[in-house]
Amino acid sequence: MKVLVIGGDGYCGWATALYLSNQGYEVGILDSLVRREWDRQLEVETLTPIFPIQQRIERWKGLTGQKIDLYIGDITNYEFLSQTLHQFEPEAIVHFGEQRSAPFSMIDREHAVMTQVNNVVGTLNILYVMKEDFPDCHLVKLGTMGEYGTPNIDIEEGYITIEHNGRKDTLPYPKQPGSFYHLSKVHDSHNIHFACKIWGLRATDLNQGVVYGVLTDETGRDELLVNRLDYDGVFGTALNRFCIQAAIGHPLTVYGQGGQTRGFLDIRDTVRCIEIAIANPTEAGKFRVFNQFTEMFSIVDLAMMVKKAGISMGLDVEINYLENPRVELEQHYFNAKNTNLLGLGLQPHYLSDSLLDSLLNFAIKYKERVDKNHILPKVSWHR
Amino acid sequence: MKVLVIGGDGYCGWATALYLSNQGYEVGILDSLVRREWDRQLEVETLTPIFPIQQRIERWKGLTGQKIDLYIGDITNYEFLSQTLHQFEPEAIVHFGEQRSAPFSMIDREHAVMTQVNNVVGTLNILYVMKEDFPDCHLVKLGTMGEYGTPNIDIEEGYITIEHNGRKDTLPYPKQPGSFYHLSKVHDSHNIHFACKIWGLRATDLNQGVVYGVLTDETGRDELLVNRLDYDGVFGTALNRFCIQAAIGHPLTVYGQGGQTRGFLDIRDTVRCIEIAIANPTEAGKFRVFNQFTEMFSIVDLAMMVKKAGISMGLDVEINYLENPRVELEQHYFNAKNTNLLGLGLQPHYLSDSLLDSLLNFAIKYKERVDKNHILPKVSWHR
Repeated sequence: MKVLVIGGDGYCGWATALYLSNQGYEVGILDSLVRREWDRQLEVETLTPIFPIQQRIERWKGLTGQKIDLYIGDITNYEFLSQTLHQFEPEAIVHFGEQRSAPFSMIDREHAVMTQVNNVVGTLNILYVMKEDFPDCHLVKLGTMGEYGTPNIDIEEGYITIEHNGRKDTLPYPKQPGSFYHLSKVHDSHNIHFACKIWGLRATDLNQGVVYGVLTDETGRDELLVNRLDYDGVFGTALNRFCIQAAIGHPLTVYGQGGQTRGFLDIRDTVRCIEIAIANPTEAGKFRVFNQFTEMFSIVDLAMMVKKAGISMGLDVEINYLENPRVELEQHYFNAKNTNLLGLGLQPHYLSDSLLDSLLNFAIKYKERVDKNHILPKVSWHR
Repeated sequence: MKVLVIGGDGYCGWATALYLSNQGYEVGILDSLVRREWDRQLEVETLTPIFPIQQRIERWKGLTGQKIDLYIGDITNYEFLSQTLHQFEPEAIVHFGEQRSAPFSMIDREHAVMTQVNNVVGTLNILYVMKEDFPDCHLVKLGTMGEYGTPNIDIEEGYITIEHNGRKDTLPYPKQPGSFYHLSKVHDSHNIHFACKIWGLRATDLNQGVVYGVLTDETGRDELLVNRLDYDGVFGTALNRFCIQAAIGHPLTVYGQGGQTRGFLDIRDTVRCIEIAIANPTEAGKFRVFNQFTEMFSIVDLAMMVKKAGISMGLDVEINYLENPRVELEQHYFNAKNTNLLGLGLQPHYLSDSLLDSLLNFAIKYKERVDKNHILPKVSWHR
């Protein structure tokens, strides 16, 4: 089965491409490589040295004999996207190819506009090329749990049945996204839902939680295959950041009270979730939504776990409660459902001491590469 | 009080600008005039001859002594928008300045992308300029009842209280928009809601129904002030189109079974609703939503009323049930609330025989200008 991974040079995309290739899928990667450019603009580097995509793919082929096709270009360019699909002829498209950082989208107006235009237009282009020439292709689109915000009721998977004034309907779950980036994903979800309805396309929206970890069976096989691991205030995400902070002796940066609770998952589950979605395509005309996370933690929970693991390794770990640069509830109800992927066979890697040890040791290995100036958050949500 | 009407050269915008000017508001119009350009591209003309905006404003000043400031430019150009606001210093912004046709947005990929980028970026720019320099300004944004779609439960005004698994919360009402245009308005609503929350801005989202009628006290005062009246398949809307079709002896174009039910209002109520919103600004940080319509009708209801009114005037009126170019339910539950504006003093002009007579006579007056080639729908929602 041929799978095109859009954004296959990124953190989740690269791990997914190799995993799928290893599972016997015919994999193509489409990527504009713009994320590498954004790193340069922000003067940040991921913890790990990332090799050029061509070298990574070449090494993968050398190790496994598996070929991965590469298409470098931007999906906001419709001609390029259409040509790529006609050349590769995917049966499934995994779409990671978006600007995926909330702080990046909140830097200023230009970044907010760029994030929304880039993400919305890229996804619209995919929908149109599917409509025109690949109506049976299955779109597996990465959304985010952050689309839901923190409602005071249970979060269902995409839809909720509402009884109101004696009548009942099952409607899209109300969204309360918390950044212009998260908003772009909500816009995408609405657009994709509509395209499935009117054109009979099939799509799965994976509302992914915060991903942690770095090694997968595939990316751990060679230094050239190593995955990126972001620690900076713009692209770094909670648990990964804490481990790197612990490794270099920087206090863990908890925003506000730290009661913010979110869904989390190991990157080894990310890649498996994608495969599950691909292997179980949804029917034509259906917009299916899975919540893709395995556990819920508050930020303070995570900081405490990293502190404990760090101390047991002899690290000196402190927790700093910073003024929250974001506008968000710091104590709230949070209970999100995630049974769809489990029902299709996902066997989670739950967060464990051994994972934390491995991640801390990984961070220690590369700690000389950390630029401490990029750890504290610099982007504010406030006026 | 200074009010900037963005999109003040359009159907609702022009009527609103004159009405507010007549009520003693200091009015500025910002418009890119792109709608006139789209008419040329589609080779359609509104039923009425529309004079250049400069002449319209000059005549208004001649008749009333009231000056209306004019700013020609595009709000997707942030510099222009910011300069205009610094020059005019509005206390309220009425934002009609979007691509507002569902069929236009469904012509092809380019039109879908243009509609969403144009509408979303224009509104983002307004939010950013308000955040930067006009945080107390009240944004009165035109949304659409079409954001809601046709759920099987009552439609509330923007929010719904949901009881679920023993807990309760009031959340944004779930949206099921039916075109890439309607989707753009949903995107806007989410973006504005977020900006109010994080920056303390104040905004009122007016989810307007289908507007009918053409004459207001102000636009009827002079031939140069006459409002546009669209009859073509792209920009024309239900009731207005039916009256013009009746006037020229064209069968009324009902799509499908015609059981599609929507909210409607007289353009004389549109202008009054805008004034009510301006005169009752919402508090800082609040995203307020009003459903702006006065009555609900099915398409068949409207066709029957126009047929009856036409026949009593001696016209020969037939109804054609066309294959529906849209993807939408043709028989469905529809019950939408509209008490917020009524509670603030709106006294509706309900649809009446005299309004239909007046609209039919108006259409007859200009009927030689109708190009029959543009009456039938040419844009399809289907793959």
